[in-house]
Amino acid sequence: MAKKRSRRAPASPAPRTAADQRTLDALVALADDIVATAEQEEDPYLDIPSRSLSNVRYNSSKRFIEMGSGTNRRELFNLSQARSFMQTVLVSSGCKQLIEQEKTTSIRGLYYLLKHSIEGAREETFDDQSDCDPVIEDVEVTLNALREELHVYASNRGSMVGNLRLIDSGDEIDCSRMGSGGYSIPSIVEPEVIEFVKCDADFVLHVEKDTVWRRFNEDKFWRKHNCILTHGQGQPPRGVRRLLHRLHYEQNLPVYCLLDNDPWGYYIYSVIKQGSINLAYESGRMAIPDARYVGIRSQDFERCGLSPSVTITLSDADIKRAKQIASYPWFEKKKRWKKEIEQMLKNGFKLEVEALISKSVSYVTEQYVPERLAAEDFLD
Amino acid sequence: MAKKRSRRAPASPAPRTAADQRTLDALVALADDIVATAEQEEDPYLDIPSRSLSNVRYNSSKRFIEMGSGTNRRELFNLSQARSFMQTVLVSSGCKQLIEQEKTTSIRGLYYLLKHSIEGAREETFDDQSDCDPVIEDVEVTLNALREELHVYASNRGSMVGNLRLIDSGDEIDCSRMGSGGYSIPSIVEPEVIEFVKCDADFVLHVEKDTVWRRFNEDKFWRKHNCILTHGQGQPPRGVRRLLHRLHYEQNLPVYCLLDNDPWGYYIYSVIKQGSINLAYESGRMAIPDARYVGIRSQDFERCGLSPSVTITLSDADIKRAKQIASYPWFEKKKRWKKEIEQMLKNGFKLEVEALISKSVSYVTEQYVPERLAAEDFLD
Repeated sequence: MAKKRSRRAPASPAPRTAADQRTLDALVALADDIVATAEQEEDPYLDIPSRSLSNVRYNSSKRFIEMGSGTNRRELFNLSQARSFMQTVLVSSGCKQLIEQEKTTSIRGLYYLLKHSIEGAREETFDDQSDCDPVIEDVEVTLNALREELHVYASNRGSMVGNLRLIDSGDEIDCSRMGSGGYSIPSIVEPEVIEFVKCDADFVLHVEKDTVWRRFNEDKFWRKHNCILTHGQGQPPRGVRRLLHRLHYEQNLPVYCLLDNDPWGYYIYSVIKQGSINLAYESGRMAIPDARYVGIRSQDFERCGLSPSVTITLSDADIKRAKQIASYPWFEKKKRWKKEIEQMLKNGFKLEVEALISKSVSYVTEQYVPERLAAEDFLD
Repeated sequence: MAKKRSRRAPASPAPRTAADQRTLDALVALADDIVATAEQEEDPYLDIPSRSLSNVRYNSSKRFIEMGSGTNRRELFNLSQARSFMQTVLVSSGCKQLIEQEKTTSIRGLYYLLKHSIEGAREETFDDQSDCDPVIEDVEVTLNALREELHVYASNRGSMVGNLRLIDSGDEIDCSRMGSGGYSIPSIVEPEVIEFVKCDADFVLHVEKDTVWRRFNEDKFWRKHNCILTHGQGQPPRGVRRLLHRLHYEQNLPVYCLLDNDPWGYYIYSVIKQGSINLAYESGRMAIPDARYVGIRSQDFERCGLSPSVTITLSDADIKRAKQIASYPWFEKKKRWKKEIEQMLKNGFKLEVEALISKSVSYVTEQYVPERLAAEDFLD
């Protein structure tokens, strides 16, 4: 261990950020505990918080999904656990190496960094990527560190534009002067990377798709309504969720979500608002319980006078999914949401935001959303 | 027709760009021809250039794939063609409306804009999106206009960073000050939207994946090597290809492509360089015959001393695809490419760019690519 540590000396003498130091300390403490146990001639083990469904619950006072306190013990001297024990230590050591070198990588990169045949055996450290990914999540949850704090990032998806100036890796970015493409939201948006300089916006409008976002940007909606406009290309990735969270809590901006009138749109809203079961351990840093839904509603077919031509018949999978979502505890207790989902099932069809184009190209930016916002007509 | 035209009067009095006027004129001429034919009491028709494989060929002097001169006649008074004739006219009219209103939309948006039940019939103009998409391509190819010139765009994908200043929709963007996320390359990058202001870069390095791009950006490769760094999240979308084309021809920048050592990587290279069969009619505005491949090579397993752990066994589909690609006329005649593909087949495995991380996190940015460029060791 000592030998390895010296080989992994920091590549750069620049002072480490407080956040990096914190993560590094946690990683070293994890390893020290194992060493201490071994030195006491006891069996080394790791207690990993359980990410199973049974250890996840909806906290009705915090109003998001959170993890329970259940853990699973992973022992080195247990034939069925030895491999995952070693994988966990290996991933921890890889993250330590990244932080010390002040570099980041993708989950694919970390996999390649750590993949090798174990000396003297024909065993590989990981068989494939799917063998490595859950271990990364184990380390996250064990250390209570965001993946990004471990210097591992997901794909970039999502853009932002609006009255906001920020510093990203030393470059000052004026999000009101980003042309047609907007500011590409990175996967890592922690305060060490992204610092808000000045925010004059009154709220955030988050839209589901980049194509809809483009309509809003082209119509300069964010300028007229003084807001920040974001999208996440469907289910928003971690970086986008975390950025929305930071804008909401640090800049006190309400977050409005413009999503499709279908189970997938409802689900995206649910994840933004209450967090996801899969990433329940990150809800505290990602969930926005006060997010509001200004998406298409089941009543809009009549209210907006849409043509049957633009409706899409619900599939069996849609119907099943809608019923599932209706039974989520955070939807179940809300009369208006219950009614919304019931109405969609009764309609027998779903509606995409783009269906509003059948009224006129800019109906959604000039009429639909402004009217909903002015009337405070949203679901929460 | 006259009535419709007056209803679709321009929404904005701003002067139209020359390019928009050109496209508009072509759309109007198309409709005028139909009207003139009808007034001569002849059967209205449209001659649509054929997009079938048999009408596509490799032009060895231009060094890209282009369309032949074959056309298919589409007649109004032909039971099997009436529907697609009317759809073609409908899509043309939708594009005219967009240009007149100075708005753009996605292919999904155009579909919704035009979808309706035909008066007095129970027939829909389009059954679904897949019914509309080929008609958009028909209009593109008939008018010899890029989709973007018809004001219809594809999804945004791809980012850029480097020593380049440009104006995007009136905003000046300094691509050397774009933080970690970079400039998000829009789908429409025609000179009317994107104007190059100042370019100090010596070349373009185009990488396949955003995660690899991020490594290059984090290591400030583009600053050290004075280049522009782009990615297209896999197969680059039209906007990225068109931007590379413009940087190559307008700014005289060589384009180097860093792609995986697998049939998919070869294919991406082929599309960037020679164009695709599907979009053969756009090759003249997208293909870059002088693009160069600095991607991972089959010899790199030995040359870089990689471990068998980081190789990925070729699947049957990979082998079939590789043989197909090897028989493309533009690869077939190139000895070094033939050897490259044969070597991959002999290896029996493929290699991703990320596999180089097993050497060290920044091996690819600090050693692999700089060495290839310095030695002019690339395939073309």
